[in-house]
Amino acid sequence: MSLTVVGTVALDTVETPFGKLEEGLGGSATHFAASATFFCPLALVAVVGADFPEAHLDFFRSRPIDLAALERHPGKTFRWKGRYEHDLNVAHTLDTQLNVLLDFNPRLTPAMRKNPFLFLGNIDPAIQLKGIEQMEGKPFIAADTMNYWISGHRESLLKTLKRVHLLLINEAEARLLADTPNLVKASRIIREMGPKTLVIKRGEYGALVFHGDEVFSAPALPLEEILDPTGAGDSFAGGVLGYLAKTGDLSFRNLKKAVIYGSVMASFIVEKFSMDRLRDLTHAEIEGRYRQFCELAHFEMPA
Amino acid sequence: MSLTVVGTVALDTVETPFGKLEEGLGGSATHFAASATFFCPLALVAVVGADFPEAHLDFFRSRPIDLAALERHPGKTFRWKGRYEHDLNVAHTLDTQLNVLLDFNPRLTPAMRKNPFLFLGNIDPAIQLKGIEQMEGKPFIAADTMNYWISGHRESLLKTLKRVHLLLINEAEARLLADTPNLVKASRIIREMGPKTLVIKRGEYGALVFHGDEVFSAPALPLEEILDPTGAGDSFAGGVLGYLAKTGDLSFRNLKKAVIYGSVMASFIVEKFSMDRLRDLTHAEIEGRYRQFCELAHFEMPA
Repeated sequence: MSLTVVGTVALDTVETPFGKLEEGLGGSATHFAASATFFCPLALVAVVGADFPEAHLDFFRSRPIDLAALERHPGKTFRWKGRYEHDLNVAHTLDTQLNVLLDFNPRLTPAMRKNPFLFLGNIDPAIQLKGIEQMEGKPFIAADTMNYWISGHRESLLKTLKRVHLLLINEAEARLLADTPNLVKASRIIREMGPKTLVIKRGEYGALVFHGDEVFSAPALPLEEILDPTGAGDSFAGGVLGYLAKTGDLSFRNLKKAVIYGSVMASFIVEKFSMDRLRDLTHAEIEGRYRQFCELAHFEMPA
Repeated sequence: MSLTVVGTVALDTVETPFGKLEEGLGGSATHFAASATFFCPLALVAVVGADFPEAHLDFFRSRPIDLAALERHPGKTFRWKGRYEHDLNVAHTLDTQLNVLLDFNPRLTPAMRKNPFLFLGNIDPAIQLKGIEQMEGKPFIAADTMNYWISGHRESLLKTLKRVHLLLINEAEARLLADTPNLVKASRIIREMGPKTLVIKRGEYGALVFHGDEVFSAPALPLEEILDPTGAGDSFAGGVLGYLAKTGDLSFRNLKKAVIYGSVMASFIVEKFSMDRLRDLTHAEIEGRYRQFCELAHFEMPA
């Protein structure tokens, strides 16, 4: 099975205590696609400017990605500039230049409208909704968002959320969206907004999954070297949706495995700047790290 | 098997967003003992003042606790006053009155010197060392400490740590002790100070266990109602040491189970003020919650 992703492609300038990247390949759809294509082919719906480097396009071409809806507009590509201090959990945005993103109007091809899975990366919820409205059949719809849309575009976001089955957001975003500090309460409030399933991303603490009356706590691998956390959330979502689309199994049992594959992908992407670690990653490495997660989390039943 | 605990018995005044407790039963040895005695008998080495309420002594008497080394001195009992804001992970100390703790000199009876397990609750590391020096044979020694001793009594603490096998501290304390933000690096640095095994407590995020080349990530149960987090760390340690002392099995396999029992005990104690939730807790509830932890953390191997 295949999936369609609507989101951003960006040029990221990132500073961390361990180095600096100038205009690297970034954006929610990029990190998602780099990760998800380890599991299944996908269709990328996004926009870049006339200045978008050919080498970055070559990266997309090297993957099983349908690029028919990656539009190239006159003007400049969306740019994000951020810095991480020693606490790598918090990104400090230094500059955002929306550029071609300002009048982005996603146009899906007939083929990608029929995909059974749709992922909406972090982007204006009004654009996310346009993606949803073009899909045919009854696709499984997953989405990410951020505090900017939760605070400033709440009505628009709530309209989109009504159509979403699986929402993946971080802890602070969940508290903001539900307006309560307690995550168990927040999970209930958010799941009344539309998404039946909520995945709360907790960075170096792993993730919590709420689905029906069930809860799953996914660990994060303690890492000694984290070069650049940019894109960790999107590559996590890429692993989750990629594995779900590959298997076509939406049971809670399989969702838990998908979340571990997402955690595996996130644990790799932070090892280098941008998504460079995913350029030469192998399936054997992915399976090996999945087994590491099993060892990390396993304990015995009582006697 | 049995264990000896050296630590504090306190009268705690605690404010949280959900209520207030005046001079409740508290202290590191108290919370530890209330929890550990669900698994094995223990000997309590601590000091209280002439003002220590008889009702609190009755609680200790109601448990399998050897009270021969619980000294009652003239003067006032150690008091702690703290407040929690909506972020229940952070305790704000409003007042500390050491009182009889100032000249506390632990004196173990011949019977409790022979116990195969010793736990040193959060207290002056010089007092912890006095506890260690009175033990006979080769007991398994576990300890807790806090930022106050790490920053202000470092040399004394390092002397104690040389004799400790298992250290249980929280994340911020681990970073402070090792002087590095990365927990994997911190775990190596700290384990060169003495303790072969390090348990890093992460509150609502669970715990990490470092032992040899192995790592274990224990989840925390997402809770809807947390009334008072005071004593969560000590009741966690009580579950870990209580289970280890009950089984006498120091393998990593069994240590992981012990850490889950610790997490179970911590998940109960925060449900009420002081250790009130442990007053009527049953073994069936403990086993039931252990199974909840199994469900919370379980996921399948890859196909």
